[in-house]
Amino acid sequence: MSTTTKGRLFGVGVGPGDPELLTLKAARLLHACPVVAYFAALGRESNARRVVGARLNGHHRELRLEYPVTTETLPPEVSYETLLIDFYDESAKRIAEALDAGTDVAVLCEGDPFFYGSYMYLHSRLAGRFTTEVVPGVPSMAAGAAVLGAPLVCRDEVLSVLSGVLPGEELEVRLRSADAAVVMKVGRNLAKVRAAVEAAGLLEHATYVERATMDAERIVPLRDADPASAPYFSMVVIPSRTASRR
Amino acid sequence: MSTTTKGRLFGVGVGPGDPELLTLKAARLLHACPVVAYFAALGRESNARRVVGARLNGHHRELRLEYPVTTETLPPEVSYETLLIDFYDESAKRIAEALDAGTDVAVLCEGDPFFYGSYMYLHSRLAGRFTTEVVPGVPSMAAGAAVLGAPLVCRDEVLSVLSGVLPGEELEVRLRSADAAVVMKVGRNLAKVRAAVEAAGLLEHATYVERATMDAERIVPLRDADPASAPYFSMVVIPSRTASRR
Repeated sequence: MSTTTKGRLFGVGVGPGDPELLTLKAARLLHACPVVAYFAALGRESNARRVVGARLNGHHRELRLEYPVTTETLPPEVSYETLLIDFYDESAKRIAEALDAGTDVAVLCEGDPFFYGSYMYLHSRLAGRFTTEVVPGVPSMAAGAAVLGAPLVCRDEVLSVLSGVLPGEELEVRLRSADAAVVMKVGRNLAKVRAAVEAAGLLEHATYVERATMDAERIVPLRDADPASAPYFSMVVIPSRTASRR
Repeated sequence: MSTTTKGRLFGVGVGPGDPELLTLKAARLLHACPVVAYFAALGRESNARRVVGARLNGHHRELRLEYPVTTETLPPEVSYETLLIDFYDESAKRIAEALDAGTDVAVLCEGDPFFYGSYMYLHSRLAGRFTTEVVPGVPSMAAGAAVLGAPLVCRDEVLSVLSGVLPGEELEVRLRSADAAVVMKVGRNLAKVRAAVEAAGLLEHATYVERATMDAERIVPLRDADPASAPYFSMVVIPSRTASRR
């Protein structure tokens, strides 16, 4: 009777978009892992895969984990939550099969795996059963401040990281009480986010950043951003008003 | 009459401590820049320099920017703020001399340069006069969540990044209103931070993380952390209570 040593699971942050913002550790693990897994929107290229595409070659087996549906196209009687739980369960099962066979698996994650990353849905299902390591990455937030050339937060200041999905009133209250803020997941919430930022008196300090460090990067004052075209990978950055004047 | 092309200034995040968490871009720029500058505490090794020490060799000129004094040893009649402003002015002047001579300069920064980094004091003094680029890095916060193996924040949750320097009452109020929180700069503020976390009802969810990803890394429940020994490079991580259960 032979015993197979189980494979190891790596949650690998690939950074915000520029392939050069990969860490040395992520590059080493990608080279070493025979199986590379990543989430992808229905019918679209995986953003995480695009970042490391030049590093994947014939010797990798790729597990594309494609979301079954988008929120836009879902009939109202179907629960998106339930569909997603099934999808994450099934995705974890596919990865577990490779791990059980003794193969190391790298799951690619945009930015940092534990910072609003979908990797966590695999981590919660697999970390208890397999040796698991998370490789932190450069979060999109840090990239946003860098391309803006604006210090984000300093000294004893408070940074609030918010989601554009929150109600406008809550956004406004939280923006008022922070020294610096980043609003993630702006996309289709842009008009609401802008109204909240303006109501909090911060419009002149706010910048809309789209696809930071990617080829298609766009940086415009929030005042001038176009709500019709904002993609999911967009954020609003409101740096500390004092950090740049120290 | 000859014109010298001015050098470029790079603010380079070197990540949280593990030399392998350097980005490929940071590694390339370190190799290419003839001058490498970094802050250091009085009489101590620079933390940022330690991360990349193996990459520095005879061909680099090093500008060690040593803080003139520590807060502990300052006579009460001397303003630390004033001393610091003079120190940053003088540091910027030394870097400007190299840039004016046409030499590229890389300023090393622990973690990410614009996330509580002292690089911003040089940036504010130099970015207007020289071509400047900031290379984002893996922040200590992302490293803390990674070594803990705990998803930090997900979906529409709010993450608050706080400083241990804040008054205990303010910490408590802000901890209560966040879904997830990281308290930076714990060090000598550990007892106060712990009291605030306990008052906010979060003690059982809070972990003390010291020197994440460095050789001397320590991870203990906040309840058991020793206030007498906490170094500056320590943080308290309170992950979202839902992110790990999705």
